[in-house]
Amino acid sequence: MSCSSLKELCLLANKTIIDNGLAKFQFGNVSLRNDHEVIIKPTGIDLDTCDFEDMSVVDVRTAQHSSGRAPSTDTLTHIEIYKKYKEIQSVVHTHSPYATAWAQASKPIPCLGTTHADYWEGEVPVTRELTESEINGEYELATGKVIVEMLLKLGLEPCECPGILVAHHGPFTWGQTVEEAVKNAELLEYIAKLACLSLQLNPITTAIPVALHHRHFSRKHGTNAYYGQENS
Amino acid sequence: MSCSSLKELCLLANKTIIDNGLAKFQFGNVSLRNDHEVIIKPTGIDLDTCDFEDMSVVDVRTAQHSSGRAPSTDTLTHIEIYKKYKEIQSVVHTHSPYATAWAQASKPIPCLGTTHADYWEGEVPVTRELTESEINGEYELATGKVIVEMLLKLGLEPCECPGILVAHHGPFTWGQTVEEAVKNAELLEYIAKLACLSLQLNPITTAIPVALHHRHFSRKHGTNAYYGQENS
Amino acid sequence: MSCSSLKELCLLANKTIIDNGLAKFQFGNVSLRNDHEVIIKPTGIDLDTCDFEDMSVVDVRTAQHSSGRAPSTDTLTHIEIYKKYKEIQSVVHTHSPYATAWAQASKPIPCLGTTHADYWEGEVPVTRELTESEINGEYELATGKVIVEMLLKLGLEPCECPGILVAHHGPFTWGQTVEEAVKNAELLEYIAKLACLSLQLNPITTAIPVALHHRHFSRKHGTNAYYGQENS
Amino acid sequence: MSCSSLKELCLLANKTIIDNGLAKFQFGNVSLRNDHEVIIKPTGIDLDTCDFEDMSVVDVRTAQHSSGRAPSTDTLTHIEIYKKYKEIQSVVHTHSPYATAWAQASKPIPCLGTTHADYWEGEVPVTRELTESEINGEYELATGKVIVEMLLKLGLEPCECPGILVAHHGPFTWGQTVEEAVKNAELLEYIAKLACLSLQLNPITTAIPVALHHRHFSRKHGTNAYYGQENS
Repeated sequence: MSCSSLKELCLLANKTIIDNGLAKFQFGNVSLRNDHEVIIKPTGIDLDTCDFEDMSVVDVRTAQHSSGRAPSTDTLTHIEIYKKYKEIQSVVHTHSPYATAWAQASKPIPCLGTTHADYWEGEVPVTRELTESEINGEYELATGKVIVEMLLKLGLEPCECPGILVAHHGPFTWGQTVEEAVKNAELLEYIAKLACLSLQLNPITTAIPVALHHRHFSRKHGTNAYYGQENS
Repeated sequence: MSCSSLKELCLLANKTIIDNGLAKFQFGNVSLRNDHEVIIKPTGIDLDTCDFEDMSVVDVRTAQHSSGRAPSTDTLTHIEIYKKYKEIQSVVHTHSPYATAWAQASKPIPCLGTTHADYWEGEVPVTRELTESEINGEYELATGKVIVEMLLKLGLEPCECPGILVAHHGPFTWGQTVEEAVKNAELLEYIAKLACLSLQLNPITTAIPVALHHRHFSRKHGTNAYYGQENS
Repeated sequence: MSCSSLKELCLLANKTIIDNGLAKFQFGNVSLRNDHEVIIKPTGIDLDTCDFEDMSVVDVRTAQHSSGRAPSTDTLTHIEIYKKYKEIQSVVHTHSPYATAWAQASKPIPCLGTTHADYWEGEVPVTRELTESEINGEYELATGKVIVEMLLKLGLEPCECPGILVAHHGPFTWGQTVEEAVKNAELLEYIAKLACLSLQLNPITTAIPVALHHRHFSRKHGTNAYYGQENS
Repeated sequence: MSCSSLKELCLLANKTIIDNGLAKFQFGNVSLRNDHEVIIKPTGIDLDTCDFEDMSVVDVRTAQHSSGRAPSTDTLTHIEIYKKYKEIQSVVHTHSPYATAWAQASKPIPCLGTTHADYWEGEVPVTRELTESEINGEYELATGKVIVEMLLKLGLEPCECPGILVAHHGPFTWGQTVEEAVKNAELLEYIAKLACLSLQLNPITTAIPVALHHRHFSRKHGTNAYYGQENS
């Protein structure tokens, strides 16, 4: 795809997370990877009045800004994820209410039902807190590092855990396409809401049986998947 | 009604549960019975781009797929319900937030008010958990079986209990028409929300008096019904 | 106003409570008084396909149905309120989520803020439970009676208490015009939601000081009112 | 800007808080300062049928009403804020659900995440209760005074604390433009909702680390700000 088309896609996806209620105002940002480049939302911009040419282009290897307006302050977080995982082609950060509330509460989202099990192979993890020196240093880079650190610690591939909660902050999701990354942000918000309501109804609700979790996840993922037209 | 019209109706009803906020993405499925055939949503399909001809047709007796695209992975659940209850002409499965939260919390919805009593003769039941061998075996068939098992255990006819919660999963509703089955899915979500809020306000709220429950249910059902133009 | 105009108004108001999310499906009903007649929504009717001529006309004194389709099953509840209070010209019954949840929880809504104090002179009361013989007898009439009974017990005029919760059932509001009665139904839902959230945040929140309650109520009501163009 | 334009802006902003769900009916009011004048919503007016010429103009120094219809009953509250803080050019009062619930619960909103830290340098404060003599005296003036009193007590400039909760009542926000003041009202509602949900998920959630709070606030404010095109 041409760089222009990718910038159009980037603008559109950033508008989508606003339209779908996952972010408000200038909150949130979507990026796409194009080989060694990342196309990302500019910092503090009004999406309604900007043009796709305004989208920022940054080099994944050097974090050098090459075209468009000044990039999102969260750019280094995105880059850190892209550097580690070649298969990730898009990263989405939102402030969607329920997922952000779980992040603020610093609690991982337990898998309480099949809706969750269809997409996350385990709970939705929450990163560790940043240290004071990380916060005062390269803060956004450190945010990317704790995301990667948590995935490694859990031994999970990005496709097994398509999103995470950054403690005190909010959700980040990813995918092999921007469509998938945005969809994962929506799914995460939905799962976060369901889990919140379930625990309200029954505070001692525990994670679903492992067998049920595995059955649902593997209906949609892996060699035995049978969900969807291509698998049936 | 012709098979084409039924397929159109099936597509429309599947879109309705999305439009009414009862399901998102590819979640949820609506089916209709036509004699020995079930028309059901295909698995993992995008409703916005598909045609009514894509709707799957499956034989109730053999589960054989005869036309349209590959059927929903939940097809055997629907079939099991149709096989047991001749009067059911449509089955609806959604992931609506409040009803799913009750299912995830594995709690039946107690009847806390007349809105509930108008449509369910008792509480909204929740199925037992599936065993590990049921999960690892014919999972979707087993889901249908525990639904029927619970109705039999409670001694209820489908019209007395137009929907149920599958533990850890979500709601299934039914009706003598697709319109009724979809409406029951909406009613169940509304009842689930009211009950959730009521218990938040007063955690020791108990079921309404039996006399009041019976009065409301029988205003709308049975030989003494006097609600609606046909009964008045 | 002509009877035709009143029927149009009745149909419109019944549609409004659906459009504003205060009721769903065939739930809820709005009536207007016109001298000795009450115009009310017919029972179990689809508002989208009916005509204003379908609206039911019933005599307040005899409950005799004189024109339009068969009246709402809740008609006797409305009539009982009209009979007692000459100043009430419209009654609205909804199943709006938060107000219904308070009714289901059988708890009066305490006055926790000025939004409430602007419209209700005290808490929003909840009726006593109906007895088994009231439920099994003239149920809808008895519902009207317990509403009036509670207002008398509290020594409140309808304008001081423009709505009430019927235990296990839902809210009824009223006004000197249908516009006011519908607005009171919306206000009650808003107040019910605010109180629910306030108690979630602080379960020991108590009613606001009497002086503050009185100040706000009397900004809008009585001889010293100074809110609104006519009072300033 | 001409006085006509300011009146148009005032009408538009008052409509915006209704359209964005921050207020209902005649609740809420937005004002703008123009040198020694304040343009404010008239009391108890229907915004849909009024004209921008109806907007009230009041002298900040004398509270004298010079043109338009009778001003909001809350006018003296606005004026008190304008008198104290020359930099404030617009004040917004809403009854938005979550912010009002915090005000009704008389609890300051703790900073539980970066969404909050981006805009408020500390918690969102709640004023002290008014005394009985303040309530019975110049009530609206006293409301303005307790707002200013709380800012002074906390040693905060308006830009460090762009909004406050008035106990038992609701939120007031401000800004250097009407657009900013309205945005702060929306942000406050969003923050209030996030905090409410976070505490539901984890009642012992505490404020985020000071370093993180400071980092986020100073990304957007002060000489080291690097968020937004002008700072990058």
